[in-house]
Amino acid sequence: MNSPVSSSHTPPAAPPRLVPPRRPLEGYFFDDYAVGQHFYHATPRTVTAGDVALYIALTGARQPLHCAETVAHQLGYPYCPLDDLLVFHIAFGKTVPDISYNAVANLGYADCRFLLPVYAGDTLRCETQIMGLKENSSGKTGVVYVRSHAYNQRDENVLTWVRWVMIHKRELVNPEAQKVITVAAAIMPLVPDFPAVVSPDEWAVPAFIQPSKLTPQMTGSNRFWDDYQLLETIKHPTGITLDESDHTLATKLYQNTARVHVDLHHMEQSRFGRRLIYGGHIISICRALSYDGLENVLSIAAINSGRHSNPVFAGDTIYALSSVAAKWPISHVLGALQLTLTGLKNLDPNLAVTDAVDVVENNPQAVVLSLNYTVLMPRRPCL
Amino acid sequence: MNSPVSSSHTPPAAPPRLVPPRRPLEGYFFDDYAVGQHFYHATPRTVTAGDVALYIALTGARQPLHCAETVAHQLGYPYCPLDDLLVFHIAFGKTVPDISYNAVANLGYADCRFLLPVYAGDTLRCETQIMGLKENSSGKTGVVYVRSHAYNQRDENVLTWVRWVMIHKRELVNPEAQKVITVAAAIMPLVPDFPAVVSPDEWAVPAFIQPSKLTPQMTGSNRFWDDYQLLETIKHPTGITLDESDHTLATKLYQNTARVHVDLHHMEQSRFGRRLIYGGHIISICRALSYDGLENVLSIAAINSGRHSNPVFAGDTIYALSSVAAKWPISHVLGALQLTLTGLKNLDPNLAVTDAVDVVENNPQAVVLSLNYTVLMPRRPCL
Amino acid sequence: MNSPVSSSHTPPAAPPRLVPPRRPLEGYFFDDYAVGQHFYHATPRTVTAGDVALYIALTGARQPLHCAETVAHQLGYPYCPLDDLLVFHIAFGKTVPDISYNAVANLGYADCRFLLPVYAGDTLRCETQIMGLKENSSGKTGVVYVRSHAYNQRDENVLTWVRWVMIHKRELVNPEAQKVITVAAAIMPLVPDFPAVVSPDEWAVPAFIQPSKLTPQMTGSNRFWDDYQLLETIKHPTGITLDESDHTLATKLYQNTARVHVDLHHMEQSRFGRRLIYGGHIISICRALSYDGLENVLSIAAINSGRHSNPVFAGDTIYALSSVAAKWPISHVLGALQLTLTGLKNLDPNLAVTDAVDVVENNPQAVVLSLNYTVLMPRRPCL
Repeated sequence: MNSPVSSSHTPPAAPPRLVPPRRPLEGYFFDDYAVGQHFYHATPRTVTAGDVALYIALTGARQPLHCAETVAHQLGYPYCPLDDLLVFHIAFGKTVPDISYNAVANLGYADCRFLLPVYAGDTLRCETQIMGLKENSSGKTGVVYVRSHAYNQRDENVLTWVRWVMIHKRELVNPEAQKVITVAAAIMPLVPDFPAVVSPDEWAVPAFIQPSKLTPQMTGSNRFWDDYQLLETIKHPTGITLDESDHTLATKLYQNTARVHVDLHHMEQSRFGRRLIYGGHIISICRALSYDGLENVLSIAAINSGRHSNPVFAGDTIYALSSVAAKWPISHVLGALQLTLTGLKNLDPNLAVTDAVDVVENNPQAVVLSLNYTVLMPRRPCL
Repeated sequence: MNSPVSSSHTPPAAPPRLVPPRRPLEGYFFDDYAVGQHFYHATPRTVTAGDVALYIALTGARQPLHCAETVAHQLGYPYCPLDDLLVFHIAFGKTVPDISYNAVANLGYADCRFLLPVYAGDTLRCETQIMGLKENSSGKTGVVYVRSHAYNQRDENVLTWVRWVMIHKRELVNPEAQKVITVAAAIMPLVPDFPAVVSPDEWAVPAFIQPSKLTPQMTGSNRFWDDYQLLETIKHPTGITLDESDHTLATKLYQNTARVHVDLHHMEQSRFGRRLIYGGHIISICRALSYDGLENVLSIAAINSGRHSNPVFAGDTIYALSSVAAKWPISHVLGALQLTLTGLKNLDPNLAVTDAVDVVENNPQAVVLSLNYTVLMPRRPCL
Repeated sequence: MNSPVSSSHTPPAAPPRLVPPRRPLEGYFFDDYAVGQHFYHATPRTVTAGDVALYIALTGARQPLHCAETVAHQLGYPYCPLDDLLVFHIAFGKTVPDISYNAVANLGYADCRFLLPVYAGDTLRCETQIMGLKENSSGKTGVVYVRSHAYNQRDENVLTWVRWVMIHKRELVNPEAQKVITVAAAIMPLVPDFPAVVSPDEWAVPAFIQPSKLTPQMTGSNRFWDDYQLLETIKHPTGITLDESDHTLATKLYQNTARVHVDLHHMEQSRFGRRLIYGGHIISICRALSYDGLENVLSIAAINSGRHSNPVFAGDTIYALSSVAAKWPISHVLGALQLTLTGLKNLDPNLAVTDAVDVVENNPQAVVLSLNYTVLMPRRPCL
């Protein structure tokens, strides 16, 4: 997932502007961004038990750590931490008005790390720095590389991630509009370099966690870290069909304002002719589906890379496959699995006569997600 | 929005009945009402963080005061107050079984005032008094004018509003049914008079509020009360498409029992052939859309008048325009804006070559909402 | 609802297995079960105010005991107890992965008793014992009889119920798969006997409850236990249409993994060609509809028996009828009503010229639910 042209990981420093200029109502375009720009995103959001219930209703997520106070307490948490992806989506939503309101596509994710648990009652806010810019050869769009951070109400950094998005150039959409900022990107393309995989020393493992307290009775499976084989592939058994109302509820819950997800009248003019489902919702659906086969995953340490290969629309049924890409022991009670999570639409891998890898390779049009992420899992208890 | 025939603001007193008669299962009809009748509406409702999360999911609302505890605290609130419209819809829902179960249409609103903040954990109940009655010339329907009040668990009045609804006459729907109450309306029509605009001395501004604590970093905009021009019109940038499941979830959340919104089998026999979307949901959608351009609105002081000009159905995409109808300074840190919020279906005002007023006048069939309301907004900080 | 072949109520004891074997990803089949098997179901779930709000949004439920803290307190409850059916669905959902993942149909319920109130913050977990097995004459499926228990975080039994489900045999679905457990069912069919009606001495009536505090102002009706006549039938006045997104949100909220409800791609291959709506959701919809006419029901003491006579699909509109099957006084302030709740699809009983019983008998294809249950209701206050 690394970009071909590399540069320094840290962009040139730019003094943060404490009072941001007013965002244009039509949003920013590619030529409005400059490397080093810093955004303080608006509309902080307190997460609550209401969000947790909605997340379960929207995805069917079942991980006990995020659903059961009893389990969270036994594992050492003071309260039930929110599902990592719920935190991600709410944080991501904060960045959309400033970063991807006019995005053509979200091209990729990298170096996403979950740094601290988030609990119901915490308030999230976000900041983003422009890390790189590259005009596309068409001259109509460009790619913007950004790093975002989410903070809680104590200004503790709970999440950081990088993404790159393809964004229209302003003059092509609205030739008469004044540019918000004179762009330097066309002159000096800068494509930052991100790690292909978040290194183990960057995972944030809570010091208090007692992994051995996660039992098969809680999760439904006696397969722990030691039981997963390198390159093993798991075909998750069922699928979930997405409909218009549920994906738009998800998008609005996350206060994600990208009109491609919620504005049918607008999208009828697009090449798709309909609303696109937010890619993050696909990640959540695939992860929820992956519960059956990966029941003892505790939490996500990092998302190493990810891309949405094909669009998903209402009516599509999503299936998922997981492969074990790498394994690391962390202690005698905890390990990490690097997993490749593949989302498929309208193709049940369980019905395929070929193996999982062939299913993916033979059906590229069905692949909607390729996510490489690292999870924590208790090691097999000594019985 | 005032009615042509006016009378006293206060209706003839009627002794409240402490034990209401049993509501007929088929609901009340026009000829069941009498001026002065007082209803204690059933099914009080505790509002919670669950309602708040659902309201965000249903509308995409982003106002920090209603979404972020940190912002509420800085502004002086003990907790995050519920969105004014969420309170309105839940209160409104309480009145439906007694008032508008058999409504043909909700014709208008007036003199709606938000008197006290409502917090998660508060329990709302409602009362309504019949203020006026007027039989329509067709002889088949009549208009009922009512004032409703919502109270919290301390019997504090948190909200009051007037509405008038067109309701079928009983004998035409069910000629054999006994009338619940002998009607006097046909004999003496009474059309009460309501103020066209709620006067500034009736706005309830919390004494504790510190408007200057609302910052552009919280809201995403540095435009404050002083920056809005009289008659300025704002075309809000995006649209939201409504689908069957999300509008019916909203209606059921508000425990609004009007079958026109939720009973397709019944509505297939109507002239629409399908379910009508609850007009209050359109108000909420338009207000959520209006965030981009009116980011620093603190709260709603009053809804002066409103009407639903055309029905909205699943599949329609809603857009919104706001115009500044009047401005009042309240203090050196706070002002009020009287806004006209216009909802349009399947017509993006941003694509129109004409100005906003012409968009509305040239497309009357697209206008689904005309709401005149007054909001509080911090004044521009002295920098 | 009793089964033709009877046996002892208590199955042969089997030692509980503390560490369950790993559930096969494809789920269990009929030939995997043995009488006496005991399942500790995974993924305990803390119920919250978020679940309560979603339940209202999904069903339109209005019972004040479950919606208003003020009412709950006056009745003697420390907090608002969750709707009995919300507890049932979440508990039921826990059992699905082990019991009915491969169910053809949920054939019936019996002896379901609500033993203790459940409050927001409680954590539910479930266990199930296999009570009986009977192969069907086709040789392709069998019926599994199970008793399930739900416990709170203090290991108090809050709910118990029996159900029987028709389940595919493994070899017909997946002939090459190894059987998980050698089946004894084909050799010795065991059909347990359950009571037709839960006897009054098994109802759990909270000792603290003060039924006389439920007033007509809270509920909207002055009809109490004494006012209902034996064999009286109530045609509930309205209907609710179900759409894909709302029924799948319900299913996922309950973490019910049965793919017949959520996986369209899979169901397109079935004889239905589409997703089936979870029968429990139909029970909740019918019960919510029954509020108008049964306003003073306090809570459910028991579900005596129930079956889903016909499948329900998105687009269907559900109506409900209730009949009073039996009455018991409990004290001078409380009584019990045994009710038959009938759900109808796309048939409004209020429009029928015939009486309610004839509506049901003449339209068997429209009947989607027959639920016999017992509710608590305050007696008429001495005025």
